[in-house]
This record gives sequence, structure tokens and C-alpha cells, in this order.
Amino acid sequence: PLGLCCGPAAAATNIVLLLMDDMGWGDLGAFGEPSKETPNLDQMAAEGMLFLDFYTASPLCSPSRAALLTGRLPVRNGFYTTNGHARNAYTPQDIVGGIPDSELLLPELLKKAGYTNKIIGKWHLGHRPQFHPLKHGFDEYYEDFKIDLKTGEANLTQLYLQEALDFISKQQAGQQPFFLYWAIDATHAPVYASKQFLGTSQRGLYGDAVREIDDSVGKILKHLQQLGISESTFVFFTSDNGAALISAPRQGGSNGPFLCGKQTTFEGGMREPAIAWWPGHIPAGGVSHQLGSVMDLFSTSLSLAGLQPPSDRQIDGIDLLRVILQGKLIDRPIFYYRGNELMAVRAGLYKAHYWTWSNSWEEHSKGIDFCPGQSVAGVTTHTQEEHTYLPLLFHLGRDPGEKYQISFGSEEYQRAVEHISGLVQQHKATLVPGQPQLNVCDQAVMNWSPPGCEKLGKCLKAPESDPKKCSWPH
Amino acid sequence: PLGLCCGPAAAATNIVLLLMDDMGWGDLGAFGEPSKETPNLDQMAAEGMLFLDFYTASPLCSPSRAALLTGRLPVRNGFYTTNGHARNAYTPQDIVGGIPDSELLLPELLKKAGYTNKIIGKWHLGHRPQFHPLKHGFDEYYEDFKIDLKTGEANLTQLYLQEALDFISKQQAGQQPFFLYWAIDATHAPVYASKQFLGTSQRGLYGDAVREIDDSVGKILKHLQQLGISESTFVFFTSDNGAALISAPRQGGSNGPFLCGKQTTFEGGMREPAIAWWPGHIPAGGVSHQLGSVMDLFSTSLSLAGLQPPSDRQIDGIDLLRVILQGKLIDRPIFYYRGNELMAVRAGLYKAHYWTWSNSWEEHSKGIDFCPGQSVAGVTTHTQEEHTYLPLLFHLGRDPGEKYQISFGSEEYQRAVEHISGLVQQHKATLVPGQPQLNVCDQAVMNWSPPGCEKLGKCLKAPESDPKKCSWPH
Ligand SMILES: [Ca+2]
Ligand SMILES: [Ca+2]
Repeated sequence: PLGLCCGPAAAATNIVLLLMDDMGWGDLGAFGEPSKETPNLDQMAAEGMLFLDFYTASPLCSPSRAALLTGRLPVRNGFYTTNGHARNAYTPQDIVGGIPDSELLLPELLKKAGYTNKIIGKWHLGHRPQFHPLKHGFDEYYEDFKIDLKTGEANLTQLYLQEALDFISKQQAGQQPFFLYWAIDATHAPVYASKQFLGTSQRGLYGDAVREIDDSVGKILKHLQQLGISESTFVFFTSDNGAALISAPRQGGSNGPFLCGKQTTFEGGMREPAIAWWPGHIPAGGVSHQLGSVMDLFSTSLSLAGLQPPSDRQIDGIDLLRVILQGKLIDRPIFYYRGNELMAVRAGLYKAHYWTWSNSWEEHSKGIDFCPGQSVAGVTTHTQEEHTYLPLLFHLGRDPGEKYQISFGSEEYQRAVEHISGLVQQHKATLVPGQPQLNVCDQAVMNWSPPGCEKLGKCLKAPESDPKKCSWPH
Repeated sequence: PLGLCCGPAAAATNIVLLLMDDMGWGDLGAFGEPSKETPNLDQMAAEGMLFLDFYTASPLCSPSRAALLTGRLPVRNGFYTTNGHARNAYTPQDIVGGIPDSELLLPELLKKAGYTNKIIGKWHLGHRPQFHPLKHGFDEYYEDFKIDLKTGEANLTQLYLQEALDFISKQQAGQQPFFLYWAIDATHAPVYASKQFLGTSQRGLYGDAVREIDDSVGKILKHLQQLGISESTFVFFTSDNGAALISAPRQGGSNGPFLCGKQTTFEGGMREPAIAWWPGHIPAGGVSHQLGSVMDLFSTSLSLAGLQPPSDRQIDGIDLLRVILQGKLIDRPIFYYRGNELMAVRAGLYKAHYWTWSNSWEEHSKGIDFCPGQSVAGVTTHTQEEHTYLPLLFHLGRDPGEKYQISFGSEEYQRAVEHISGLVQQHKATLVPGQPQLNVCDQAVMNWSPPGCEKLGKCLKAPESDPKKCSWPH
């Protein structure tokens, strides 16, 4: 299913994806965070290229990560639910589904070009044995979980950093091209930081976590430089979805000037901080307005490895190398999905909302608010509002906060919506939805007997299988 | 009234204040504006020092500018009203008052150190002859007004740029120290740009104006460098109040992640973009969290000229040179006034609101909204809410958007409010309010016979004097 263009080259470019968890667009100094506490990331941007218009493929962890590793929208790769309309679904302990074997993951493909692949941190594509990362192309997998929920102290980021440095050293020593997927989670609630970073940020615990990540990224980049492989290693930093405003301020970050956060298809839910770094290749201080997507990391990584993307299926990611190396701009839309529904589409600077929803009144009345302090009439709705015949249109250049609807009667509206509606038609006409993987939950599939449970006398017997529709409230 | 420390030194440092009108904290790329269209200002920041916590002294033009030029809070220098409680007042055509003769303005003081002073653009400290800038220390005054309201086209920024360049050249040629107060207004509604900038921004007309300003600032800095006087010229860029969200998106800017805008004492109304530039003196790439104020530009400028501030009156500005040159942090509070009322106080990262108000329900119901798309319960109130006995407390590091009130019962609240209340007591105990200058309006004082009216046959006869209380709705 894939065209191998050149075979494993001796000088294949290493790939390091630094994927944050729930970090928002506005969390870095380079993106205007008022405390400006990310000197290493800001420096990474100054030496590389800043992407200002970079998106995830879902406002929630699991589908976003599935999209990144497959280069395909969740609605294609199965990481969505049809249990309800426009519902965000993920992979809790009792989920039955996971990443289908039929999906080709980035590490599987890179393997054929001689790469050694390691995932450090969060996988989130299914818990059952058949969904294990080592079954889907990764050669190594490292994760740990110990967090002191009361103090927020945990040295996990240090462990993840050390794992990354060791892996890089080992691969460099062995002259092996590598793919490192550093999927750490210190900025996901419960947020944590190591002792030496606790209390060091102006921003509280969340900021401590960001500072530790910033420090770690600096160390990884420096390590690459010290090993003399920075010019043969492509590094990309981004996040899996917008900041979880529901957990802010102690446990959640910032989406800068954008509307709402995680769980929503407003800019705050899906626009991500993004930096590409590759000394000697990427001109320093670059800034790109390319509409980018985490799915592009799939295609771009293949390109770096000298591989062609699979030709037997629709790939949504595009190869960004021309953008990154030559400053080109590629015309392409961004599709904002929530579960099984295409909620909005961006083309150029226009964004059309075909459906609006933050969450239900019922949830909202319990204090669950995806848009705290923000409320745009007719936009941040608490009922699912259909606008498929007359989409709400916004100009993200003049109005990045999605506050000022463009008048239905205007010429500008006519022109933009006609264009976007054409893109939607084309998209829908060719869309083959995957089997939804996030429909069924069953307590029997949970890990009742984790490794080592015998010693602790804590092994539990799995209950009888009782598959049910998972409940996805929003 | 002033202690002259050294007399006019041959090598006195020139001073250029670039004061924007209604430009918001979030309007520059360096402050996270998503279109990142201000390469010259971003470069200025990279070569100089970025101030992230810099404030105006009033969320409205006239009082802010009076504070800048006197180094004193509007409630001291008279630029406020007592016609209503906590009302923003300014200097419309029919205002009777203006800057009192008893106030000592920065250019008056600099004059004694041999400076030549020029104001280009907006004065706004009173229209009547006794309030003219040439009566208050300026040697030259240039302003123009022609704007095509339909297209937004006007070449005023180019005229103001040329005036600035010419003035600088002339002073350099004459070896004269100078103070240039470049108070342009392209970002104040009606927003305008020159033909060559119209339509060039992703952000629409407002962005066109910002791009032209950015280009002009670049040209001014380059001019200083080409004349070889950049090392003897201190340049400071800031704005007079927060972005006017009421005019957004076409005629108003962005306050980034902050709450509300112009007219309010929330961060969006009073926190300003700020950059200090002085090659060879300010270390490049500096970032400061000093709590700064436009009033500090008064004291800092005097210091640069080798002058002591007046000792016969309370000066609110502080000399920032230690901050700028040595990276020191000076402990000082920020007082957020609205008219005659102290609405809020910031000390360190804490901000206490003693009064909350955005605008009246009556105004709001007419669509006048100072916080579009934003609403924080109990904070962005539409009635004037008093909290003087139990102020609302926010931590601007964790919560720059003023959305998450710190619990009244917490230890953190006790500690912070005790500290801030002490500062308030001290402030109020020594406060001597000035005679309010913005109470009385009279159509008779308007300029009925502008220069040249005879030729056009458009001279009008002033009506009988009929002084009234000015009406300040918010
Ligand atoms: Ca996430
Ligand atoms: Ca103003």
C-alpha cells in the first residue's frame, strides 16, 4: 500500500515530535503569554519557524493523536462515535475499541525505511493488547504515572526527558535513524511539575509545568546539537488540543485571544502553538501563516524519510517541507470536526460554522463551562444549532476571537460561503467514514490485573462482559 | 520648583515618545497578535526591552496624556470630572477646562535643560488659547485632520512621519537636544491608512493602520541610526489606553487575552504595549515585568535630561532607568482610576477591584459594549458595584483575564488584600485632588472661526456663553 521511494537512506533525517497535552496557543511567550516564561521555546521559534495558523484535527486527545499518527481525520480512521450527534469521544479505561489494524501508522511506515521508533508518554489509541503501541510500529514505549495530586509534585517530565535524551544518544551512537514521539502530559489535569519547578512560575502550578517542559525542550535541542545531529534531526513542537479552560486557572492553560477551549470547534479548541526547528535547513526567525494540521506531521515525516504516503486511502495531511524550507503557502482548508459532525471549515482567513455548540445547558448549569468569561450570542450556544444552509461566517484576520459575524446579506459573505460550501461538498462527496471505534464501553476490558498485582495482593477479577453504548455527554 | 542637577549638557540624551492612540496590548506581533504584521516594532523589541506590565493612568485619551506629560495621576492634575461618580471625561470641542497653568509639563522642564520640544499629532489637553501646547513648553506643534471617512484613506501618518524625520534631522544638524512627542492617531476611530497600506493587512483597515505605523516607526529608528544619534536618543513606544473594542473589528484593535477594553479599568482598558529602545545602553532582547506607567515617562525623561523632578508636588511617575539599564525591579503599585474614583489597585501579581463597572444597562441595551463577547459574573457589571470593604481579588499571573476571583475566605486573599489595603490607605491619606477641569462645557468656547474661514466664508459667530455641566455617560 505504500510507495517506497528510496529505501532506508544512511542519512535519513531523524524526526522528533514534541506533542503537548492540552497546551493552548496562548501558553508560550512567543505567542503572547503575558508572563513570557518560555525562553527555550521562544528561542526554538527564533531559530526555526513559528506556525501561527496550525490546527489539531479534533478538540480532544485521542482523536487528535490518532489523526496525527495516521495522517487522517478521526472520522476516517475510526476515532469518533456515532452514539450521539457531534460528541467528543476518547479512550477511557472501559473503551472496547482502539486504533484499527487497518490503519497505517507513521511508525509502521518509518520502520520500513529503517527507523527505530519510540513513544514516550501518552498513547491514548486504545488499552487492549491489540492496540498496544508496540503492535503499531513503535519499538519502544515508556510511560509512568506517579503524581502527588495534593501538591502537584511529580518528576515525570524529568523521567520523560531522560528517556528522550538516552534514546537519542543510543540511536546516534548506533547511527540509526529514529522517530521520537515525545507525548508528555504535564499540562493535562492533574497538572504536575518536579520539585525544582514547583512554585517558580508567575502562573501557578500550570505555569510550573510549562516552565519544566520549556526547560526540557531546551535540553533536548541542546542534546541534539551537542551530539552533532541537529542538522539531521527535524523537530516539531505542538499540542493535541486547545487549553482546557474548564480546568483553568490552576489546572488549565491559555488560548490567548481565541474563543473557548478544549472540547469546542472554536479557535480556542483547535488552534495550536507550533514550531518547526531544523538548524541549517529552516531559515531562522521564520513565521508562517500556512494553514497547518497535526495530520501534516504524518505526511511531512514520511517525506523526510524519503517515503511516499500510502496511496490506497485518503490522507488528509500534506507535506509541509516546501512551506518550511521555501516559505511557500499551500492552499488547503481546515475541517473542524466534533465526533461525527463537520462543525466548521476554514479556508484562507474565512471560517464558516455549519454547527455551533459549546455544551448542553444541563452541563453548563452544573458549572461545566468550555468558554469561561466568554459568551458570543448565537455562537457559543448551549443547544446544537444547525447552520448548514446559512453558515455563520467569520474573518479570522480582522476577528480572531470569532465575535463579529459577517452579515448574511453582504457580498463578502456570498463570495466566501460559496467558496467554502464548494469545499464542503467536495469533502463530503468523497468521504468514506471509518468504523466508529469509540461507541462501545465494557468494564470487562479494563485492566483489572495490572502487572505486579500479585505481589501486592491487588489483582481483581474482571467482571462478566457487558458491552454498552459509551455515554459521551459533550 | 525644580532642582537642576547639571544644566544643559552637550551630550544630553534626546527623547522620542511614540504614543499610539487606542492601540491595544495585543496589537503587536511581539505581544501575540495572530497575524504578526509588525516586523519593525517586533525588531525594536528584539533590540530593546519589552515591557509586559506597563499601564496607562486612565482608560481614556485626555487624562492619560495629561498624566504622561505631568507625571501625575489625572485626579491630581485636574483631568477628571466630579459631575458623576467614576466617569471617564475628556476634552470635546465645548470643554471649558484644560491643562492648568499650575501643572509643570515635561517639555516645560526639558526646555530648561536646553531641549527643543515638538509635538506631532494629538494634544488633547484643552482647546482654548491658554491651553495651547506652545503655551506649555512645546516649541513646535503639527497636526492635520484630513480623512476620507468612506474609504479610510488618509496620508496623515506619512505627514507625521515626515515631520518627525525633518525635526530629527534639523535638531541633529543644529546639535540641539530634543524631545519629540509623536502622538499619532491612525488607530483611533475613524481609523485610517495611506493608499499604499490600504488593504495590505490580514486584519482589515485597523491592521492597515497598524502596518503603516509599524513601517513609520521602523523609518524613524533607521533615521536615528543613519544620523548616528541612535545611541544618544532614548525611544519609547506605548499607547494611551486599551483598544476600543466598541469600534472593533474594523475600527478597533486587540487587547490580547485581557478583559474588556478602553473606558474600563480591567486589564484590557489599561495595560499597554510598551517597548524601550536605546542601542548601546539597553541590552537587546530584554523583557521586563516592572509595573510601569505612562507617568514614568515623565520621570524617566527628566532623568535622561539630567533633571530632578519637581519637589513641590506629588509625582506619581518613577524613574525607570535602573529598570531599563540594569534590569532592576522597583516595587510600586498601579492605581486604576476612572474619573474621580479609585476602581482598582495592582500590587505585584495581585489586583484588587474596589469598584466594578463596565457601563450602564441603559447604554449596554443600546449596543454600546466595552466587553464584546466577554462577560464575567460580578466583574463586568452594568451597575456600579462597590467592593471597598471586601475587594474582589485576582492573580494576574495565573489569571491575566480577571476571570477567577480568589476566594474571600482564603489565606491568600487575607494576605494580599491586607497589603493592598495598606497601599490604598496611604495613597488616599496623602491625596490632594486637583481642581476638576472636565466639569464644565460651553458651546461658546468652540472654535467657531477657524483660521482661513474668512476666505471660505465659513466663519461663524460664537453663541452667547452658556456654561453647563458636561454630560459623561460612562
Ligand atoms: Ca489533550
Ligand atoms: Ca486614546
